[in-house]
Amino acid sequence: MIAPESLPTLPPVLDYAGVTVFALTGALAAARDRHDIITFWFFAVVTGVGGGTLRDLLIGAPVFWVNDATYLGIGLAAALAVWFLSRYLERAKTLIWLDAVGLAAYAVIGAAKALAFGVGPLVSVAMGVLTACFGGVIRDVLAVQPSALLKREITISAALLAAGGFVALNAIGVPALWAGVLGAVAGFGLRAGAIHYGWALPAFGAKRG
Amino acid sequence: MIAPESLPTLPPVLDYAGVTVFALTGALAAARDRHDIITFWFFAVVTGVGGGTLRDLLIGAPVFWVNDATYLGIGLAAALAVWFLSRYLERAKTLIWLDAVGLAAYAVIGAAKALAFGVGPLVSVAMGVLTACFGGVIRDVLAVQPSALLKREITISAALLAAGGFVALNAIGVPALWAGVLGAVAGFGLRAGAIHYGWALPAFGAKRG
Amino acid sequence: MIAPESLPTLPPVLDYAGVTVFALTGALAAARDRHDIITFWFFAVVTGVGGGTLRDLLIGAPVFWVNDATYLGIGLAAALAVWFLSRYLERAKTLIWLDAVGLAAYAVIGAAKALAFGVGPLVSVAMGVLTACFGGVIRDVLAVQPSALLKREITISAALLAAGGFVALNAIGVPALWAGVLGAVAGFGLRAGAIHYGWALPAFGAKRG
Repeated sequence: MIAPESLPTLPPVLDYAGVTVFALTGALAAARDRHDIITFWFFAVVTGVGGGTLRDLLIGAPVFWVNDATYLGIGLAAALAVWFLSRYLERAKTLIWLDAVGLAAYAVIGAAKALAFGVGPLVSVAMGVLTACFGGVIRDVLAVQPSALLKREITISAALLAAGGFVALNAIGVPALWAGVLGAVAGFGLRAGAIHYGWALPAFGAKRG
Repeated sequence: MIAPESLPTLPPVLDYAGVTVFALTGALAAARDRHDIITFWFFAVVTGVGGGTLRDLLIGAPVFWVNDATYLGIGLAAALAVWFLSRYLERAKTLIWLDAVGLAAYAVIGAAKALAFGVGPLVSVAMGVLTACFGGVIRDVLAVQPSALLKREITISAALLAAGGFVALNAIGVPALWAGVLGAVAGFGLRAGAIHYGWALPAFGAKRG
Repeated sequence: MIAPESLPTLPPVLDYAGVTVFALTGALAAARDRHDIITFWFFAVVTGVGGGTLRDLLIGAPVFWVNDATYLGIGLAAALAVWFLSRYLERAKTLIWLDAVGLAAYAVIGAAKALAFGVGPLVSVAMGVLTACFGGVIRDVLAVQPSALLKREITISAALLAAGGFVALNAIGVPALWAGVLGAVAGFGLRAGAIHYGWALPAFGAKRG
């Protein structure tokens, strides 16, 4: 378990990081559709805070960004960064890799906050997975794109490995920071392998193809 | 009215049943898209708990599955059942009938929990309808499928009959259990007629066709 | 700041107005797809209360329509009005103008309620924008239509002008009623110009076309 006294220092830094990564993916989605800068900002904020908002509503926590305008500034910074720098980026590739980082990070962050609010370990893992996956789902629904979840690649499994690894390591006494880093790295590694090498679990029906 | 003392025994069994049915429809949707077993599980859980989660957020109740990992197990069981048994099923047909059962059951369950939390009767009916219909909406949005709501068949009307019948019978003194069974049977019957015989209310514009 | 003592009188009238406008857009969307009257009602209610529901969940307020069945009646009235009168309307045009009114009104209403609940000014502006924009998003997702947000026209910017104008004027001492009216008129004017004259902010990539 995460000691309650570690709670006050936990959320801000981690949530800033997770929001930044997902905000960039939101702004990149807006760029793909050639929106204006205000719409970039909207997509950046909604995508950035969406996953954590769902987590907070589910566990009954005050929604993390409602009392801290910093998150809106992060969204604006992400929108401006994509607006001015994206000509130097291959957008689709950048989006998929940032999404992988966000997935792994948010899976751990979501599970950690759930644990810190007294949610049991199994449900905390689920909370991490939902938190990690819904940021991208909200972005894709808003952009009317097929969700990244539905590519027949490993995505949810990577979030499950990250969140599950963190919660399991933490339960056997590994300090929260190390458990989180190891979980996120494992989840990111699995997702990276899926992106780069096409790793996949057996798909339903494949055995009968 | 449902007596407050009946509250503690009300939710678990009913929610388990409603979640099971909708979890199966979620796993079947994942099967249609030939996902892996982890994605089956994700779809089963999200579809299974989605409607009830919306209900709990709206009425200010603690989200029912956050403190009970059983629901995750139900999702896993549903995923495994569909994975191993679905070759024996005609999937589209099974999905539509399970959806009909889930719609009727969740309409009553959603209305009953709202009443038990002190929500007025009319809004409790609405809560039942929303709860019943959003499980399928969330599944269809995740699967990027046209929502079952949008087939020009009776679906929302069936949920309204189930929830409204339950609340009305309950209000005139019929015991909650019987009111619920009668409401669910009536709603399911209407939906079954719509599926089997093509029953429909007059569609907008039809009279001027 | 809105004085706390103005809170009790704030929500009902304004929320009724915002819900009515968005409920009409929901029923019009149902008419486009030739649904039955119950589905009209469902779309009217969900679209009408969707934006405000998100706002209330985010700021931790009791969801405004759960304890007041009037909103369900507004939805029914909107459904009936569209059902019987829409032959006299050019539907697409009516929908876009009602949507513009709803956007401006809900942006101010959403920001005002957030301020009244002690949310800071910047986040209150964001709350107004999210509230205004998500009513339409929920309607479009339910109707499986490309979201109005994604037309490359000014929509989010208009909500931002309405909510931001209201909060800024209010902060420099303009009475809440006038600040709200001025903000909503400015936001509606910007949206109206975008609809009528095709006003747009520079789109991403346009400069390099």
